[in-house]
Amino acid sequence: MVSTHAVRGANAAVAPEVTPVNVAVFGYGYWGPNLARNVARHDATQLLAIADLSEARLLDAKKEHPWVRLTTDVQSVLDDDQIEAVLIATPPETHYPLAKRALEHGKHVLVEKPLATTIEHAQDLVRIAEACDRRLMVDHTFLFTGAVRRMKEYFDAGEIGDVYYYDSTRINLGLFQHDTNVLWDLAPHDLSIMLHLIDEPVAKVSAVGSSHVQRGVENIAYITLQFESQLLAHFHVNWLAPAKVRQTIIGGSKKMLVFDDMEASEKLRVYDSGAKLCASEDEIYRSLVEYRTGDVVAPKLDKTEALAAETGHMANVIRGLEEPISDGAFGLEVVRILAAAQASLDLKGVPVEVSR
Amino acid sequence: MVSTHAVRGANAAVAPEVTPVNVAVFGYGYWGPNLARNVARHDATQLLAIADLSEARLLDAKKEHPWVRLTTDVQSVLDDDQIEAVLIATPPETHYPLAKRALEHGKHVLVEKPLATTIEHAQDLVRIAEACDRRLMVDHTFLFTGAVRRMKEYFDAGEIGDVYYYDSTRINLGLFQHDTNVLWDLAPHDLSIMLHLIDEPVAKVSAVGSSHVQRGVENIAYITLQFESQLLAHFHVNWLAPAKVRQTIIGGSKKMLVFDDMEASEKLRVYDSGAKLCASEDEIYRSLVEYRTGDVVAPKLDKTEALAAETGHMANVIRGLEEPISDGAFGLEVVRILAAAQASLDLKGVPVEVSR
Amino acid sequence: MVSTHAVRGANAAVAPEVTPVNVAVFGYGYWGPNLARNVARHDATQLLAIADLSEARLLDAKKEHPWVRLTTDVQSVLDDDQIEAVLIATPPETHYPLAKRALEHGKHVLVEKPLATTIEHAQDLVRIAEACDRRLMVDHTFLFTGAVRRMKEYFDAGEIGDVYYYDSTRINLGLFQHDTNVLWDLAPHDLSIMLHLIDEPVAKVSAVGSSHVQRGVENIAYITLQFESQLLAHFHVNWLAPAKVRQTIIGGSKKMLVFDDMEASEKLRVYDSGAKLCASEDEIYRSLVEYRTGDVVAPKLDKTEALAAETGHMANVIRGLEEPISDGAFGLEVVRILAAAQASLDLKGVPVEVSR
Amino acid sequence: MVSTHAVRGANAAVAPEVTPVNVAVFGYGYWGPNLARNVARHDATQLLAIADLSEARLLDAKKEHPWVRLTTDVQSVLDDDQIEAVLIATPPETHYPLAKRALEHGKHVLVEKPLATTIEHAQDLVRIAEACDRRLMVDHTFLFTGAVRRMKEYFDAGEIGDVYYYDSTRINLGLFQHDTNVLWDLAPHDLSIMLHLIDEPVAKVSAVGSSHVQRGVENIAYITLQFESQLLAHFHVNWLAPAKVRQTIIGGSKKMLVFDDMEASEKLRVYDSGAKLCASEDEIYRSLVEYRTGDVVAPKLDKTEALAAETGHMANVIRGLEEPISDGAFGLEVVRILAAAQASLDLKGVPVEVSR
Repeated sequence: MVSTHAVRGANAAVAPEVTPVNVAVFGYGYWGPNLARNVARHDATQLLAIADLSEARLLDAKKEHPWVRLTTDVQSVLDDDQIEAVLIATPPETHYPLAKRALEHGKHVLVEKPLATTIEHAQDLVRIAEACDRRLMVDHTFLFTGAVRRMKEYFDAGEIGDVYYYDSTRINLGLFQHDTNVLWDLAPHDLSIMLHLIDEPVAKVSAVGSSHVQRGVENIAYITLQFESQLLAHFHVNWLAPAKVRQTIIGGSKKMLVFDDMEASEKLRVYDSGAKLCASEDEIYRSLVEYRTGDVVAPKLDKTEALAAETGHMANVIRGLEEPISDGAFGLEVVRILAAAQASLDLKGVPVEVSR
Repeated sequence: MVSTHAVRGANAAVAPEVTPVNVAVFGYGYWGPNLARNVARHDATQLLAIADLSEARLLDAKKEHPWVRLTTDVQSVLDDDQIEAVLIATPPETHYPLAKRALEHGKHVLVEKPLATTIEHAQDLVRIAEACDRRLMVDHTFLFTGAVRRMKEYFDAGEIGDVYYYDSTRINLGLFQHDTNVLWDLAPHDLSIMLHLIDEPVAKVSAVGSSHVQRGVENIAYITLQFESQLLAHFHVNWLAPAKVRQTIIGGSKKMLVFDDMEASEKLRVYDSGAKLCASEDEIYRSLVEYRTGDVVAPKLDKTEALAAETGHMANVIRGLEEPISDGAFGLEVVRILAAAQASLDLKGVPVEVSR
Repeated sequence: MVSTHAVRGANAAVAPEVTPVNVAVFGYGYWGPNLARNVARHDATQLLAIADLSEARLLDAKKEHPWVRLTTDVQSVLDDDQIEAVLIATPPETHYPLAKRALEHGKHVLVEKPLATTIEHAQDLVRIAEACDRRLMVDHTFLFTGAVRRMKEYFDAGEIGDVYYYDSTRINLGLFQHDTNVLWDLAPHDLSIMLHLIDEPVAKVSAVGSSHVQRGVENIAYITLQFESQLLAHFHVNWLAPAKVRQTIIGGSKKMLVFDDMEASEKLRVYDSGAKLCASEDEIYRSLVEYRTGDVVAPKLDKTEALAAETGHMANVIRGLEEPISDGAFGLEVVRILAAAQASLDLKGVPVEVSR
Repeated sequence: MVSTHAVRGANAAVAPEVTPVNVAVFGYGYWGPNLARNVARHDATQLLAIADLSEARLLDAKKEHPWVRLTTDVQSVLDDDQIEAVLIATPPETHYPLAKRALEHGKHVLVEKPLATTIEHAQDLVRIAEACDRRLMVDHTFLFTGAVRRMKEYFDAGEIGDVYYYDSTRINLGLFQHDTNVLWDLAPHDLSIMLHLIDEPVAKVSAVGSSHVQRGVENIAYITLQFESQLLAHFHVNWLAPAKVRQTIIGGSKKMLVFDDMEASEKLRVYDSGAKLCASEDEIYRSLVEYRTGDVVAPKLDKTEALAAETGHMANVIRGLEEPISDGAFGLEVVRILAAAQASLDLKGVPVEVSR
């Protein structure tokens, strides 16, 4: 019994006189329908075509978007000069060839995460986009949630202080895929949030994982990032967890944040951490007994649907009104860390440097 | 407004005709008062003496135990033939010399975790206890909680199936100590629970940590254990966390367990995991959407205070009525893993084999 | 990032050879868009028209349903012989005249709750529907949720035993309306669930409320229902609550249920209550200390969207394939209790008999 | 594994030069052991005697307090001039005769809640205490918790604004007693907190309850208080609830408070409510969609054990250093409301005026 009205506020930020961007969506599986729905609904975009190799999925699309061109022929969409932007929500290994073709046909491109499955492919896409002067963006949707935007404000205002650690748990009973493991499936979410908030290069990555269901496809992994400073980042991703957990804890010298995405309304909590550090042993001892040192605040968050905000942002980037938050270079950095983590996984946990 | 009656049920299991064990407690800091209180209250034990180097702490002890011998002179207690058992709750680095002296004076010994701070010391204590024919036990209190005892029953009954992973988070705003880091302070709890439940030798340990408050004393650490099988164990221990978390997730091929010690009444939850593994991709996909595959059960747990149960167990072990659950060899295994984790910490995460 | 696929399973129960029911939706404010979306999507129904007096709302509708007839002229829809059923989601005081007209034009009618704002009007609609041989249904959507359907199974199987009490809290920061108070806005949900589960006539109703924001429009009310037996039902409805609570507790002699609709996955919990009642005082005492008497079970629930299930049910009722779960007589009983509660509210809490 | 050190801070507020108050405890059942423990531990009091009619309970007492006089002879304690204060934790119907005797023997008296079981008895005790010039206090322990003290500060600082409603739920699987029903057992806690916070006389009380286990002894009751203003107070007390709930919601024109005593660390939450009231309908509508209007704050609370704080307060009152927070007149007001609620219960919910 949820109203559909909440979504609409997202349009407010878009200048009304700007012509809507004409969009095609490639891939109508798990995530494509959400992209298509948001593009169709947003005032800054117009959904002209959906392409998918499966006729069954196109039938699903027809039920939701009966007036939109539905096709299995990607090339016909690329050849259509009306289409200005292509949103790619196909399996990861197809991101590179499809994005490459779209850029070379003069389309702006938003690719579902991860940008590509190898560093080389990701680098190539960044290069091609620049050569063709097209906007390349990676769909790291979490960057557009109210919670992450509020966290970004805390960081930008210097309220966190020195960042001590970034700890994330993203686990649930998962969708097993033949073409990807849990690292490449879930970790991009957390890596993109971390890179968005923390401006410090990752030095070394270690990762340990295991395959319990499908030989050679890890369904659980622990990834640790070491930096030049004392900062430590850690990610637990897991497709075989009994309950869904989406929790990030960030410890800073001034404030600590807990972002729990399973909470209905108080998704973000802010804790005071400053007092503790200049404390005598005796005071620290007391803080143990008392559990915490100050008031806890759950700030009000903007409830605009992340994809609606991202859709407007994408249109503004394409129209030259905004700088992209998650461009090709950003998506490439995520792929670099994923690749290092995969190398460490293969080495059973030996730390690996991030290739640059 | 808690009743004190709940504790007493623990006495029921002790045969009434057995003579109570005469006990001395060494150390009356953080944990010693709890040992003393339980020994004083239990029908199977009698508290005869408390030793501590601090006069102030002995004054605290006098308020609670006015009729008990209080002394700063450890030797006088060791020389007292009435004393049959010594419970050692002093700082970790004193465990070895004090336990050694007590065993050599013919006392049975229960040592606060960890048994010792080096593998050599721990081995030596095991050897001496055997040579002196005294019982050496390590106080891993969690093994006596209702939740862990219930988990042990699930494992012993084969209801978990193959164990896939063991994941634990033990974080809070912590007591900073000069003599130990967070690894040696918190990880023994989880290592002891894991070793109690899972009978499979640890192959390699990797650990990464960081010191943010006190140079050289890690306040956060991530420890990963690899086994010969696909089993993976992971521990997050942290003294700088904004909120207290005590959560263990165990994934098995038949059942998954979640043990949340911060829950007031439903500390343990049992999830069905069997159906998922023989499922087609389509079924797995549906399980993603539905979050879980079967009913969830929170079994009723015994609420006897763990230390009361442990006190009775200790008396029974000393009287030859029960086998020790956590003897010297068990405590030594915990120390072996801690030492390997420390070595990996010092190597910035390079996996290290457990020394045997 | 929720998939839209989960909804579709609801179609499975509908026989494929049945002709879809042609539907019009009246009212496109808060709830109407959800009705329209489900009707459009379901295989058993076809959305032909949406009527609303507001042009702005029809523009909203156009964005979602560009191929559907949109009109401010209700009469033209009623005159359209293609339309077989009308779904009325307009303000409560218009339910009676609109439903009456629709029935008299030979349409089947589903009215948003409450059926009407007076007992007389509700009775009249039941009478007219019978005279015209049309199906009259009231949209008590909660009856189609997985949680309520599972609760119904427990009741039907006799697993609850004698019902002792039914307690519900439905509070949040609310939508203030000029035309209704919190009693008529929120209590219909809980009354319909209770009447669906418990087959025992309400004897007396008392209610106390208060108006803090808008004079004469209660924003908080406590409603108590007394029955001939020892059963007691109680409802707390509140538009000025700081946090959203949706919790129902049902105490029976065998089992107790807790239905918490704010929980993401374990919405329903089942507690054992049998042991306690034949217990000696001593056993009861122990249950106090232990908080509860047996395992707790969170049964797996069907996740089909309630409105999708209800839409299919409505089509089946209209095609004569199912008996209505929430027909006019059921909606009338809800109105009778609301009217008695309002009378008691006006008398400042004096208990009032339910008029029959 | 809770330290016993936290308790000691409570002593800090007591002037060291004051002579400790010599105390006897009457009744060593459920609550008496807690009183005895706190009196024994506190620097401002000295525990000299414990009286109970049951030899078995005195044996329990001996284990905890071996050096204290233990007796079944109340009179011998009353005749002992050393004893300055008597703490009465016996069954409710004995409060009156025991407190009367103690006051008449020149003792200060702290009576477990409720002060007495009839208004007449409570009035008589107030009169006698005044006549004998002794301090009469009622043990409403919750007034000394960190959460209630913090709530009191919000009220005293005018931060709540006009109080709209006070809603409390205190339910669990309960201890059935032969001598009292759930109303007299649990409601005194909430009535005392409410009267402590809100300075406005109760006008009318209505209550409905039911007996499911023991004929004539209500195990569930709903109590509603009406005031001259629009303020409404409501209490749900229940001994047959599947899970323990301890939640109070207070709605004010400026702030709303939620006090959840089952929360480990964030027991109190403060919500902003001001903006909403001057809002246009449109803004209110948006607040519905967004669930809440501002940041939520969980203030840091003092963790001193309530009984330790109360013990020190009692000593200070007896020594003339503080005014009593919960004196006889306060306890009498609680009894007046309980008596009115019982009268309404007996009338099956007809509102009853509070007798004065």
